[in-house]
Amino acid sequence: MWKVITKDFNKEDIINHGNKFLIGNGYMGYRGTLEEFGKNELVALNLPGVYDQYENKWREPVNAPNPLFTRVIYDGTELNPIVINPVFHQQTLDISCGLHKRESTFDINNKQITITSERFAHLTKYSLLVMKYSVKTNAHLNLVIETGIDGDVWDINGPHLNPYQIVNENNIVTFSTNTRECHIPIVVSETILCDFNAKISNIIDSHKLIRQINLNIEKDKTYTFYKFASVKHSLDEAEANMQAMNEINSASVLGYEKLFIENYLEWQKRWLVSDVELKGDEEAQFSLRYSIYHLLILNQKHSDKVSIPARGISGQTYKGAIFWDTEMFMLPFYLNTDLQTAKNLVKYRINTLDGARRKAMEYGFRGAFYAWESQETGDDACSHFNVTDVFTNRPLRTYFRDKQVHISADIVYGIWQTYLRINDLSLLINGGAEVIFECARFYYSYGYLKHDKNRFEILDVTGPDEYHERVNNNAFTNRMALETFNIAIKVSKLLKAENKESFDNLIKKLNYTEDLKRIEEVVKILYVPQPNNSGIIEQFDGYFKLEEVTVDEVKSRLIHPNEYWGGANGIAANTQIIKQADVVTLLYFFNDEYSSEIKKTNWDYYLKRTEHGSSLSASMYALVACENGNPEWAYPYFMKSATVDLTGKSKQYAGGIYIGGTHPAASGGAYMTAIYGFAGLKIIENQIKCFPHLPKNWESMSFKVILNNDLYKLDITKNNITIAKEDNSW
Amino acid sequence: MWKVITKDFNKEDIINHGNKFLIGNGYMGYRGTLEEFGKNELVALNLPGVYDQYENKWREPVNAPNPLFTRVIYDGTELNPIVINPVFHQQTLDISCGLHKRESTFDINNKQITITSERFAHLTKYSLLVMKYSVKTNAHLNLVIETGIDGDVWDINGPHLNPYQIVNENNIVTFSTNTRECHIPIVVSETILCDFNAKISNIIDSHKLIRQINLNIEKDKTYTFYKFASVKHSLDEAEANMQAMNEINSASVLGYEKLFIENYLEWQKRWLVSDVELKGDEEAQFSLRYSIYHLLILNQKHSDKVSIPARGISGQTYKGAIFWDTEMFMLPFYLNTDLQTAKNLVKYRINTLDGARRKAMEYGFRGAFYAWESQETGDDACSHFNVTDVFTNRPLRTYFRDKQVHISADIVYGIWQTYLRINDLSLLINGGAEVIFECARFYYSYGYLKHDKNRFEILDVTGPDEYHERVNNNAFTNRMALETFNIAIKVSKLLKAENKESFDNLIKKLNYTEDLKRIEEVVKILYVPQPNNSGIIEQFDGYFKLEEVTVDEVKSRLIHPNEYWGGANGIAANTQIIKQADVVTLLYFFNDEYSSEIKKTNWDYYLKRTEHGSSLSASMYALVACENGNPEWAYPYFMKSATVDLTGKSKQYAGGIYIGGTHPAASGGAYMTAIYGFAGLKIIENQIKCFPHLPKNWESMSFKVILNNDLYKLDITKNNITIAKEDNSW
Repeated sequence: MWKVITKDFNKEDIINHGNKFLIGNGYMGYRGTLEEFGKNELVALNLPGVYDQYENKWREPVNAPNPLFTRVIYDGTELNPIVINPVFHQQTLDISCGLHKRESTFDINNKQITITSERFAHLTKYSLLVMKYSVKTNAHLNLVIETGIDGDVWDINGPHLNPYQIVNENNIVTFSTNTRECHIPIVVSETILCDFNAKISNIIDSHKLIRQINLNIEKDKTYTFYKFASVKHSLDEAEANMQAMNEINSASVLGYEKLFIENYLEWQKRWLVSDVELKGDEEAQFSLRYSIYHLLILNQKHSDKVSIPARGISGQTYKGAIFWDTEMFMLPFYLNTDLQTAKNLVKYRINTLDGARRKAMEYGFRGAFYAWESQETGDDACSHFNVTDVFTNRPLRTYFRDKQVHISADIVYGIWQTYLRINDLSLLINGGAEVIFECARFYYSYGYLKHDKNRFEILDVTGPDEYHERVNNNAFTNRMALETFNIAIKVSKLLKAENKESFDNLIKKLNYTEDLKRIEEVVKILYVPQPNNSGIIEQFDGYFKLEEVTVDEVKSRLIHPNEYWGGANGIAANTQIIKQADVVTLLYFFNDEYSSEIKKTNWDYYLKRTEHGSSLSASMYALVACENGNPEWAYPYFMKSATVDLTGKSKQYAGGIYIGGTHPAASGGAYMTAIYGFAGLKIIENQIKCFPHLPKNWESMSFKVILNNDLYKLDITKNNITIAKEDNSW
Repeated sequence: MWKVITKDFNKEDIINHGNKFLIGNGYMGYRGTLEEFGKNELVALNLPGVYDQYENKWREPVNAPNPLFTRVIYDGTELNPIVINPVFHQQTLDISCGLHKRESTFDINNKQITITSERFAHLTKYSLLVMKYSVKTNAHLNLVIETGIDGDVWDINGPHLNPYQIVNENNIVTFSTNTRECHIPIVVSETILCDFNAKISNIIDSHKLIRQINLNIEKDKTYTFYKFASVKHSLDEAEANMQAMNEINSASVLGYEKLFIENYLEWQKRWLVSDVELKGDEEAQFSLRYSIYHLLILNQKHSDKVSIPARGISGQTYKGAIFWDTEMFMLPFYLNTDLQTAKNLVKYRINTLDGARRKAMEYGFRGAFYAWESQETGDDACSHFNVTDVFTNRPLRTYFRDKQVHISADIVYGIWQTYLRINDLSLLINGGAEVIFECARFYYSYGYLKHDKNRFEILDVTGPDEYHERVNNNAFTNRMALETFNIAIKVSKLLKAENKESFDNLIKKLNYTEDLKRIEEVVKILYVPQPNNSGIIEQFDGYFKLEEVTVDEVKSRLIHPNEYWGGANGIAANTQIIKQADVVTLLYFFNDEYSSEIKKTNWDYYLKRTEHGSSLSASMYALVACENGNPEWAYPYFMKSATVDLTGKSKQYAGGIYIGGTHPAASGGAYMTAIYGFAGLKIIENQIKCFPHLPKNWESMSFKVILNNDLYKLDITKNNITIAKEDNSW
């Protein structure tokens, strides 16, 4: 089963289906909306990495004009399920090849008109969108098809685009514009090829250019046109125009079928490396594949200037920003299956080091304090007032931006994991080591020596559990800071040994001698909270003293359904109720440092206290349950993680802020649970090992892993583990 | 002019007049309400130092049954201005002798009945309340006078008293009870002496015992009775009963006039030492005397187990707790005029050291962390949720209790100032040094070494400006912590030199050798924020980055009139608007460390940003303005401080919490401004100096100061300063 299918049409599902039926290729995302939809239905051709700020609103990625806009009008009625109930309706996403399909039949006075369409975002020609659109009727009648570019884009905090320059020449429609803040050129061109002859006239206004096709339609005959659209940005405007023109010209010469096959074959190549086959559990199989689909459409093979936003390419929520989600929850997938993307994700962080330096300086620290919400420059898009109080409508002071300091360590961790997998010193030499050193310097400058206890502490932070802001000695954060110091020391030794010149240059460039000495000094006394007598690791200083209460009890205290649980006065803030895995995240990432007993005790203790208000939470619980040898306990959290975008049952609001969209970190977490949890993959001394804990109805798992430039296939059954190197042709 | 007089009666003034016409003697306070009033009019016989907690409500001081309750009924109508408009009404407080008077004439069908009364709380027989009550009419008629004990007391967070045992023997009515939490016995007895004969019957219920006096009254003849009431607590119950009985027996033998004279003479003695005479400004003269009156009725000559609550003896607000107000704003008055009280205030802190140790331990620190709201044990009465959110009715997490760490330093400062004035080593030997050492130890254990900058910092505090919670390196707090270290080091040297044995014993008892060494180490690197290039001292790290806005602008953002400005999300919290003098308080207490230029610059800068939401604020601005040689700038803040309880224009609510009552710290601040500001008193090397800055219409100031057991009289005119020792008979 490789298809997401819906046969109902409900207005309430439009937003959710926009995410669920999303197509894309990392360069752009196109929401799973119908061709006749517009901004009210949250149509978006989302361009990750192209950011714009309008007035003092939130800076967010830009949505481009929609080149696939198409509608059919019969007898004055628009054939749109919002306008008229279809007698048949089906929307399909084929995740095997990233193909979106729709079919709708409308009945007007026994005249039945069927619309079918297919579209895909080309995986290698990544600025190319392709659509096939057909109509067919059960009677001879006159129809109008309108198709063109709809420039009236949906924006959360826009408008972002300057007035369009609209050109219509030789059946090629081009919208050229640029962003308001940074004047980044954006060019969208499209052309159509019709398999029929018809009179075409144009309707144009400042936001739209629509071809009006008047069709005298024969009964039972299919009328099809193909659309080729090119979306270019960040180039010189003339260059962008030319490239777009060339791209659609080449595409229309090649034609729909060849493009489709080209794209299909590329998808097969990707699935060949990325697929995880499960036997015995179709629901899990499909959900996991759907998760992998989302990671595939987020690949960043094409650029090291962009990374993967927290809501992927599904729209503008979360400011299109890159969070720790990428390094901690998605990078593992790419490290196993797509090193080009993995390296680009790391390079994005290297490329934005200066932004992290600016942020550290802004708060009076040295080194690199990476953005909590990173955009193209690495400057922080996160506001000090990131939530709106539902009671007063006032912005609430939140501490995501200035206190979630574990972000720098997460990035160091990601770089180091990548280095370990690719085993290529050039990653460290070309910026990786510099980031690591600067992040270590940041923690040194951020931390304090508790003179009275001779220990180095990390104070006033917000850990993964964002419901408790400004806490001291968050176990996860402190352990990650320690990891940063450890990695910095390892890297300094490694570089010194392997490439003395670049080591010396870097130390000199960063004026780092003294800092390295101090880091080597405080690393010995960095305080990481340890299990107490009951085996529980206190999430942060004073956590145990907070009100002990159930999630349900806290929920029952809500006055307003959308009120923010965190912040200083949120209903969870003064209780032990946490948003998401925090100590449990620590236990996963440092699982070899804790006994099963400790993992089990803390899993139990914190699970009762976790609201799972973040989609990052479930996979951590699933992974640690697997570590504990309890795949059945892991299973529901795995499924929760894998299905979050299928069910659409995720939080839509935090405070007064809409936060909908896809959840690639949950997709990544589902993948991690499958591979590192159920299959129990561990790479030990550059060798693949497996310690599987398959759920009881899973007969087998098969998947591939890249290691040392070789592709390995792993086949796991209840009784057997086979790890075999594939031939080199992949 | 020594009298506060009101001739109007408005229901809206009842609460305010309860404070304005307050009488008392430190042992008890009796609110300025009319005899016929009850709990709805906030009658209170307040017992500072006797605390009780009912269920999980706030712990607060107890109000005793009201032994002065008296009302007159004519023809079925109660002669009470709430019931019937008086044709004449006057309420008077004679501050020269603490005498409360009322006179009301009611007219019912042309029958005019006049009630007059006088009452005082005896200054030396401090458990004794005395009242004279008279009626007179313009016609022959029958009246009923009801007088007795009203046990239906007003409580904010009560009820606090167990059921009364009521005894009525030999015309002596006694209510015996005890508090619910700690079973502290409370006995209130009263008797009356009538100058007329009348039939008396009794009405009794569980809360009241009332004598009903049926009077056949002659025209124009005055009928008077005298009441003597004794209020005993904290003794064994039988002992309390006996002492109360004896006290009212002795009192009634002595009679009203003699008691009045006794009390009057004692008041004269106190004024002789305490008065500050001003020529040329009657309003200032009266307001200042009224302030001194409040400090006189708060003297604690009788006990070192109680100190002066923030709302004095005016009721239960602020939990009857002792704040830094006492040491920093009131102690200076007693150090100049009443050393017995000064020493008792200090001893109260010594006596509550164990409470401060418990609080330090509770938060994971060593040493003594004094209660922000201290009651009889020194345990903190302040809650972590000290304000109610007006929008949600939820308790708001506030950080008064756990972060206002300057309290320990304020106490050290108070002890040291007292030691310097009384020059008596026994104060240090008998607990003073122990408190100082333990407070220094607390700051050492609270603070952190910023390794990166090699400086010792005081993090995560709330300074005097409570609108900004959890800030780092509050200038005032850090300087006070430094002062604590300095004083601890001075005391250790002093004790070592003067009384080696007690020094050794103390060091040994406290196991203090290592701590002293460490304190001597970090004192050198304790960070105190210094003036920046513009001469401004940043109130705390990051203050300059907060929104720059006017007080009026912030006020205009209020949605609810009673919403709390502070807390994490209060309207002031993210702006530069501060509740009260903070840096300016630093500049006053350490005025010799800053140039006039710096004082002037910061005064200007912070004044614009100060809401004066605390009654402690104005006097600090007044004092620093005097330091700057600008008495005219100081004058309005002086007057604001001196008149706060006369005008009744103070904040009545913080969040949803009623905070009304008298403001003894403002009274103390007014006194300080007069003496240390306008008169410019400085005691330098044990010698009295004056550097006066009289406001332009002030012709002269005269006042007395005790120094080295001598009384000095200071006469200051525009051109002349005379400082003369008084003879020894004072």
